[in-house]
Amino acid sequence: MRIALDAMGGDHAPREIVRGAVEGLEYLGPEDQLLLIGVRDTVQAELGAAGANDARLVIEHASQVIGMDDVPVEALKQKRDSSIVRMATLASQKKVDAVISAGNTGACVAACQLRMRTLEGVSRPGIAVVLPSFHGPIVICDVGANIAPKPFHLLQYAQMSAAYAQSMFNVERPRIGLLSIGEEEVKGNVLVKEARRLIKEDARLNYIGNVEGRDLFRDMVDVVVCDGFVGNVVLKLTEGLAEGLMKTIAAEVARESRDLAPRFKPIIEAIWARHDYAEYGGAPLLGVDGICIICHGSSNSRAIKNAVRVARDCIVRRFNDELGRKLTRAPDA
Amino acid sequence: MRIALDAMGGDHAPREIVRGAVEGLEYLGPEDQLLLIGVRDTVQAELGAAGANDARLVIEHASQVIGMDDVPVEALKQKRDSSIVRMATLASQKKVDAVISAGNTGACVAACQLRMRTLEGVSRPGIAVVLPSFHGPIVICDVGANIAPKPFHLLQYAQMSAAYAQSMFNVERPRIGLLSIGEEEVKGNVLVKEARRLIKEDARLNYIGNVEGRDLFRDMVDVVVCDGFVGNVVLKLTEGLAEGLMKTIAAEVARESRDLAPRFKPIIEAIWARHDYAEYGGAPLLGVDGICIICHGSSNSRAIKNAVRVARDCIVRRFNDELGRKLTRAPDA
Repeated sequence: MRIALDAMGGDHAPREIVRGAVEGLEYLGPEDQLLLIGVRDTVQAELGAAGANDARLVIEHASQVIGMDDVPVEALKQKRDSSIVRMATLASQKKVDAVISAGNTGACVAACQLRMRTLEGVSRPGIAVVLPSFHGPIVICDVGANIAPKPFHLLQYAQMSAAYAQSMFNVERPRIGLLSIGEEEVKGNVLVKEARRLIKEDARLNYIGNVEGRDLFRDMVDVVVCDGFVGNVVLKLTEGLAEGLMKTIAAEVARESRDLAPRFKPIIEAIWARHDYAEYGGAPLLGVDGICIICHGSSNSRAIKNAVRVARDCIVRRFNDELGRKLTRAPDA
Repeated sequence: MRIALDAMGGDHAPREIVRGAVEGLEYLGPEDQLLLIGVRDTVQAELGAAGANDARLVIEHASQVIGMDDVPVEALKQKRDSSIVRMATLASQKKVDAVISAGNTGACVAACQLRMRTLEGVSRPGIAVVLPSFHGPIVICDVGANIAPKPFHLLQYAQMSAAYAQSMFNVERPRIGLLSIGEEEVKGNVLVKEARRLIKEDARLNYIGNVEGRDLFRDMVDVVVCDGFVGNVVLKLTEGLAEGLMKTIAAEVARESRDLAPRFKPIIEAIWARHDYAEYGGAPLLGVDGICIICHGSSNSRAIKNAVRVARDCIVRRFNDELGRKLTRAPDA
C-alpha cells in the first residue's frame, strides 16, 4: 500500500510530522510506501535530523504550503502546488491508497472533496472524530466538514459512522444517538427532528434516541451524530475542559501537600495519556472516494504515527467497500 | 421584597426546594417574604419536617403540578392552576419582585414570557447560565430558551449578559465572545457571521471576537453568546465531562494506592464544590419584565438557597432598570 502524508501541515510541521512518519513505519510492510509531500529540501533535512534511512519513505516535492489560517477556497486556487492539493491529486489518480494531513482542515476537506469526489450516493462527507470517553471510544460525526447540513446528511453520517465503529472498534451493533437538548422526541431544532425521523426509519441502524452532552460520558452511545458546527464546538470544549480540569487538580494537589504531588502526578499522566486524542490518531473524512485521515492541528509525532495506523487499517479492512453497502443513496446523487 | 418560589418544580421537589427556601431566609430582611407556591398540605408537611417556623415563609396554594417531562405548551394550557403558572401570574401582577423555579424549564420560560412579557425593546428572552470556569465565572447566553435565534437576538444576548456580568460580578468591561468554530472572521455559520457584524457595530460592547470551546477555560472571556441549542449542549457536556473526569481520577487514585485515596478525596471535593453549579444558584431569564431565576432540574437545597440570593441581588441592584438603558431596541418591538 501507499500512503501520502502532508509533511507541511500542522502547528508542529514539518518536524513532528516527519518524525511521526518515521515512527509510523512500524505499521507498514516491507513493500509499502509512505510518501512525504512537501518542500523537498525541508523534508529531507528533517529526515536527516531524525536519522531516518528507510527506502519506504519517499519525498514527493510540492513547492507551496497552505497556512493554518489561510482561507481554504482561496488557498486552493492560489496554491495549486501545495502539499494539500498535491496529496489530494495523488489520491484522485489512485496513485496512493490513503492521505493524511494535520494541516488547514477546511482546505484539506475541500481539496479531498473536490479532487477525490464522494463515494457513489454520498451527498456530503463528514469528519468522524473518535472521542476517548471513560468507557471506550465514541465516534462523533460531523465535527466541522459540514456546518449547515440537511437532515439527509445526518442520516448518512449515522450510517457511515456506525460502519466505522463496527469496522475499526469491532462494535457489533453500534448504539447511535442524535445530539440534542433533551431526550424527549419533541425536543430539538428542526434539523434534529427531521434527521431523527430519517434515522429511525432505517431499521439497520441501532438508533437509541436523542442524547445530551452529559450522556457522552455515561456509556450510552458508540456513535453520536450532529451538525458540524455543534460537533466542532463539542470537540474543542471537551479538549479545553479536560485540560483545564487536569491542570486545576494538579495545582490544587501541589498546593495542598508537597509530598502528595509527586505520587499523584503519574496517575494524572496515565489518565491523560489514555484520553489523549493522539492515541486515536486522526479522524476519517467519511464519504470521500478514498481514505482521507484528518489530524488535529497540534498533532505531535505520536498522533501522526497513530494516524498511519488508522489509514493502514482503513485500507486493510476495505472500509470504503463496506460503506458502499450500508448507505442510503442520496436522491440527488 | 417578595420572592415567589415554585415549591413543586425539580427532580428533588418539594423536599429540597422547601429546605432551600428555609436556608435562603438568611439572605432576606425581616420585612421580606418568600412565597412557596405549591400544594398547600404537601408544602406544609415539608416545612414541618424541616422544623421551619418563620413568618416570612408564606404558602401560596396551587393545586396542580407540571411534570419535568410534560410538553411545555400543552402543560400550560391544561394546568392553569399549576405552581409555574401561578408563579408567573403573581409576577405579571407585580405582586412579587422575583420568581424562582427548578421545574420544567420549557414551561417556566414559556409561562414567564407569556405572562410577564418582555422588557421594552426585547425580542426574545434568553437564559444566562453562570459557568464556574477555573478563572472565575463565565456568563453563557442563551442555553435553551431560544433554539432558533435570529442574529439580532444574539446581539441582545450580548448586551444583556454583559450587563449581568457587570451588575452581579462587578466586571467593569466584560469581555464578550461569540461561540464559533474558529477565531477567524470567516469561520462560523450564517447566524454567527451576521451576529458578529451586529455585535461589532455596538461600540459599547467589549467584543473580543469569536471564541472556541477550549477558550472558555483559558481566562479569555467573561460572556459567551450562542444560540440556545449549542448553549444547552455545551452546558450539559461540561457537566457530564467534569463529573466523569472527577470520577475517573478518583477511581484511578483508589486503584493505585489505598493510602493516597483518603488524602486525595478532600482535594477533589473542594474543587468540585467550587465548580458546582449549585454555588451560582440559578440562571436569570434575561429580557422578561421582572426577575425570573431558572434553576437546574437536579437542584438541591444549596442551589435553591443560592438562587434566593441571586434573586435578591437582582432586585436590590435594580438589574432590569440597568438593562433598559443598555439595549438596542428591537425593530419589531
